[in-house]
Amino acid sequence: MLVIMKRDATKAEIDAVVERIKEFGITPVPLPGAERTAIGTFGATSRAAADAVESLPGVAEVVPVSRPFKLASREVIAEDTVVRIGSVAIGGGQPLAVIAGPCAVESRDVMLETARAVRSAGGAALRGGAFKPRTSPYTFRGMGEEGLEILAEARAETGLPVVTEVLAPSDVEAVARVADCLQIGARNMQNYSLLDAVGEQPKPVLLKRGMSATMEELLLSAEYVLARGNRNVILCERGIRTFERYTRNTFDVNAIPMLKRLTHLPVLADPSHGTGKWYLVAPVAMAAVAAGADGLIVEVHPSPDHALSDGFQSLSFDNFRSLMVVVPQVARAVGRGERVAAR
Amino acid sequence: MLVIMKRDATKAEIDAVVERIKEFGITPVPLPGAERTAIGTFGATSRAAADAVESLPGVAEVVPVSRPFKLASREVIAEDTVVRIGSVAIGGGQPLAVIAGPCAVESRDVMLETARAVRSAGGAALRGGAFKPRTSPYTFRGMGEEGLEILAEARAETGLPVVTEVLAPSDVEAVARVADCLQIGARNMQNYSLLDAVGEQPKPVLLKRGMSATMEELLLSAEYVLARGNRNVILCERGIRTFERYTRNTFDVNAIPMLKRLTHLPVLADPSHGTGKWYLVAPVAMAAVAAGADGLIVEVHPSPDHALSDGFQSLSFDNFRSLMVVVPQVARAVGRGERVAAR
Amino acid sequence: MLVIMKRDATKAEIDAVVERIKEFGITPVPLPGAERTAIGTFGATSRAAADAVESLPGVAEVVPVSRPFKLASREVIAEDTVVRIGSVAIGGGQPLAVIAGPCAVESRDVMLETARAVRSAGGAALRGGAFKPRTSPYTFRGMGEEGLEILAEARAETGLPVVTEVLAPSDVEAVARVADCLQIGARNMQNYSLLDAVGEQPKPVLLKRGMSATMEELLLSAEYVLARGNRNVILCERGIRTFERYTRNTFDVNAIPMLKRLTHLPVLADPSHGTGKWYLVAPVAMAAVAAGADGLIVEVHPSPDHALSDGFQSLSFDNFRSLMVVVPQVARAVGRGERVAAR
Amino acid sequence: MLVIMKRDATKAEIDAVVERIKEFGITPVPLPGAERTAIGTFGATSRAAADAVESLPGVAEVVPVSRPFKLASREVIAEDTVVRIGSVAIGGGQPLAVIAGPCAVESRDVMLETARAVRSAGGAALRGGAFKPRTSPYTFRGMGEEGLEILAEARAETGLPVVTEVLAPSDVEAVARVADCLQIGARNMQNYSLLDAVGEQPKPVLLKRGMSATMEELLLSAEYVLARGNRNVILCERGIRTFERYTRNTFDVNAIPMLKRLTHLPVLADPSHGTGKWYLVAPVAMAAVAAGADGLIVEVHPSPDHALSDGFQSLSFDNFRSLMVVVPQVARAVGRGERVAAR
Repeated sequence: MLVIMKRDATKAEIDAVVERIKEFGITPVPLPGAERTAIGTFGATSRAAADAVESLPGVAEVVPVSRPFKLASREVIAEDTVVRIGSVAIGGGQPLAVIAGPCAVESRDVMLETARAVRSAGGAALRGGAFKPRTSPYTFRGMGEEGLEILAEARAETGLPVVTEVLAPSDVEAVARVADCLQIGARNMQNYSLLDAVGEQPKPVLLKRGMSATMEELLLSAEYVLARGNRNVILCERGIRTFERYTRNTFDVNAIPMLKRLTHLPVLADPSHGTGKWYLVAPVAMAAVAAGADGLIVEVHPSPDHALSDGFQSLSFDNFRSLMVVVPQVARAVGRGERVAAR
Repeated sequence: MLVIMKRDATKAEIDAVVERIKEFGITPVPLPGAERTAIGTFGATSRAAADAVESLPGVAEVVPVSRPFKLASREVIAEDTVVRIGSVAIGGGQPLAVIAGPCAVESRDVMLETARAVRSAGGAALRGGAFKPRTSPYTFRGMGEEGLEILAEARAETGLPVVTEVLAPSDVEAVARVADCLQIGARNMQNYSLLDAVGEQPKPVLLKRGMSATMEELLLSAEYVLARGNRNVILCERGIRTFERYTRNTFDVNAIPMLKRLTHLPVLADPSHGTGKWYLVAPVAMAAVAAGADGLIVEVHPSPDHALSDGFQSLSFDNFRSLMVVVPQVARAVGRGERVAAR
Repeated sequence: MLVIMKRDATKAEIDAVVERIKEFGITPVPLPGAERTAIGTFGATSRAAADAVESLPGVAEVVPVSRPFKLASREVIAEDTVVRIGSVAIGGGQPLAVIAGPCAVESRDVMLETARAVRSAGGAALRGGAFKPRTSPYTFRGMGEEGLEILAEARAETGLPVVTEVLAPSDVEAVARVADCLQIGARNMQNYSLLDAVGEQPKPVLLKRGMSATMEELLLSAEYVLARGNRNVILCERGIRTFERYTRNTFDVNAIPMLKRLTHLPVLADPSHGTGKWYLVAPVAMAAVAAGADGLIVEVHPSPDHALSDGFQSLSFDNFRSLMVVVPQVARAVGRGERVAAR
Repeated sequence: MLVIMKRDATKAEIDAVVERIKEFGITPVPLPGAERTAIGTFGATSRAAADAVESLPGVAEVVPVSRPFKLASREVIAEDTVVRIGSVAIGGGQPLAVIAGPCAVESRDVMLETARAVRSAGGAALRGGAFKPRTSPYTFRGMGEEGLEILAEARAETGLPVVTEVLAPSDVEAVARVADCLQIGARNMQNYSLLDAVGEQPKPVLLKRGMSATMEELLLSAEYVLARGNRNVILCERGIRTFERYTRNTFDVNAIPMLKRLTHLPVLADPSHGTGKWYLVAPVAMAAVAAGADGLIVEVHPSPDHALSDGFQSLSFDNFRSLMVVVPQVARAVGRGERVAAR
């Protein structure tokens, strides 16, 4: 870390900082400057030391140097992690994977019909929420365990592996029994009890970025899962909250190549939540692929106008099929393998 | 709601919207304009209807009219709710309540020493986290159940009621056995399983605004608790995430009078998290009181430089005592009763 | 517009709103609802009326319906506008145009060397700032008129048309004498004197989105130029300010297809400012093209490490050449014509 | 500055950074650590050096140490600057100054009536825009020079000094002939030609924070004016742009005490723009005073419902009088002198 002293810091104040740093077993190096003194440190620094020093008299600022995530870091693990959802491999040089399905599991018929459409268009896996987090307590919160059974049936019929969200630690076991991949939604990205719980079971985890989470915080949340022993984590950019009002969220396309640089974990893009408008899904999906995403997760519904949730951002089957024609072309244009992953 | 059609919407498209609205049992009223047609509705509107209509052909925008929260709304319940934490009444015309204590329960000695200092300076209640949400998995996550016992001891000695955070539905029972008020932290404001759980037990709930939550979302999260039957909810503004980098968060002082206008629930201010700098805590605390807050929640530590967490934003005992001298003066200046609440 | 009354609005308050609306020559339509009354209007609405009504007693909210921009709107002018910078056509079905060059004109040598490299790699036009807006008054503010002469020389040698920024109304004439296109920078997007000035001369205008401007505000700033009679406006997405700290700005890729839907004006992307990191420029450039951008504006420098400004986000000649190989592939993949525009 | 190398940086890369730093006449100090090497510097650092080093191979990050503003910094000038607008002193220990008036000068009658009301309620100075920046080109843009004459008349009658906005460098002379203080609006905070122009004339400057400007950027814009020789700069917090939608802007109350700590310049608060709702103006005004503001600037109108601009955030005369009763009480409560400044 680097401790920056105020211009008028006294010698006694500088000495006190030096002593305090030593208490943490760290070696301080004073760097007197023209305008003020700074104090660097040799060796590892703990956050605790940085926090302790920050409020000492005469200190202007403390700058941490090491990135706070380890197991998620490409500096620690250089090689791409490939995560398998059922038989579909995601990340590394693997073909682009498109996960698709309705926002929520609404009924057996809708789910099965969508699963068939996803499969025939070349999708790699199925999504659909049995447990739904909703901003208002008065809206549809999902079919629960019955929804899980419908997802299992859809998988049995189409062979597509299933990704579904889990909302509470107490549901992890039940959801993991059915799902091929557990999704942690944006609102739960910093629900640490839940991260601990999915970190202690073996199914892969799809971790969505919180709507106001920095990339660093996303990687630290991944670190929670990794630190519990589950190394199969997939990150997902799904749009962040900004001042812009014409779109539901602002899809942070910068995050795709930046995360690929910072971490070895696979990175997916969710253009449905990232835009909140069905007519922006295809162009932003293509943008994400061009920027290097390892796959997409997209909302599809047989009749978006009648969906119980998020219909305004769901693709119809026709629009999904069109997307699945152009996505491989973009993937090829940026050197992303021959084809899109499909069973 | 109001459905705004595109300029070039056809008569058939307008008719289809009118029919679709009727399917929800709502009466549509077409409003042809110079540039385009809009369609208003008589009677109650459900979100489901708004969502369904939004994606129909020819629709430019759907504007919901009713506020989506009910039990939290001052339009529904005009009179101020007074919430009691132990014997301390908060909200309505009650004296200002100052809740103070360390960020985390670190040790018996620090907690008891702080509790005595809070009491003698005129604090109304004690705060301290036994379970701590932390961005990194590698930092101190609290003393857990042992911390709860220490809090109980501090209450027994000082008579101050205890506010402490709960992180997981499975911990609610244990925390509620000890705490006089359950805190839901900013990161868990949209953890709906947790909101359901605290809504189903009788202890009051201190609900902190998420760092990127709108006021409407805060009120909807309160609605979750209220809808489960627990009407003792206190809201807390604690700073939102913005682009500004000199402060940890941006304390949204507008939210104090705006929330007081929108809801009958008490509104507290947390200037410690709202600023992230100990030297800004006092001026922002006074600002919040001047703006109409029903109370404050402040981090205090015997030796902020040595705190295990958040030392940089904690007040020393001396600074807390100074704050407790000036706060009642500001409260009086804005007509907020004679004194600050204290046991 | 739609005026939403409070739940407890009295009949007298509703009547007063109805009367006030009539004063503006607009016909109000009361819409009594289950919970409250709303008042819609037939015909055109002025902002002035909306503002006037908003503060009347009993009014909860006023929702404007018409979009406030006209000449920039695709609803008013359906067909794509094609803007010519020198001989290069931008927008409509025209080939993708890549404008490139150093952030600032630093010296004759650097500018000429870069111009040749841009030309040989297939760039369509040259960029370079003679007048530079800088956050600090102590940094290099550009070569001024001397820089303009160097730009003219670079054009003479390479045949590439020149895009350069103008900072003040009093400089418009001098800059327009040399430049083929006048750039309005992000910080000046709402400098209305400057917008008026460039609107009154005939050279095309490249208008960059302000770092915290909504798309609507960008279109309204374009409207200033259009309303003065200059119909040759090109919009440019260059990243917005968010809470994210790993990148300089957040490139709003959603804005590309959204703006193309809202307006007939060409839309460019600036991945250099949009990311602030040279190693993110290529992936985000490709993303912008995949999302439907009509062209790119990119910072290139012979020796980015030694650039006087923005070196950290400038491409070397080698990296620019690599980008110019892959961009046409992406353009083709999304059906964007056969080739990239080049002289 | 501190240069942080990547974990896998080679010795050759570290040496290259050391050499590059030396080229700027700065002495580098390598700090090898457990995980990576950092390089500190002795002596002054220029931004140019930091930028140059940032893109060298093996560099992970460059952290500037010195604050980039000088003349605005309290570290350079410790004593409070007192700025005089006419005969009213602002800043230092001076009594709180309240500047009030309509958003725009709309007519002679409205301006004179308001001036009398401001004076009789105890206001210190008069505000009113003759030149108005407007988001849309189709709205009222002010009365121009005629408005200036009306302001001069209002001053002659009431004795109140006049603060009014200037939009373009070419208007500075005309506005400065009439105004006692030139206002730079939020949209022009980074209009450097305009900052240069007001820095070269002697009338004091009221500089409003841009709606997405950091405090550092505000201070750097002040630095532009100061560096041109005009040392009479007053800063003004007027709300920043965030995701919150219930208020027009988010008033950043943290900025009041933070700016007072960073700079010796006076700091005003504008609760009218900071909230955008007339009913929030009084509580937020009091909050700003409690947080240490040197004064307020408030919109007042004889008939807010009929104002040509910003009526929804303007106080009526009655509400302004009520505010002027309570503001001195809050000022006294926080030890801010005996009374509010008034002629």
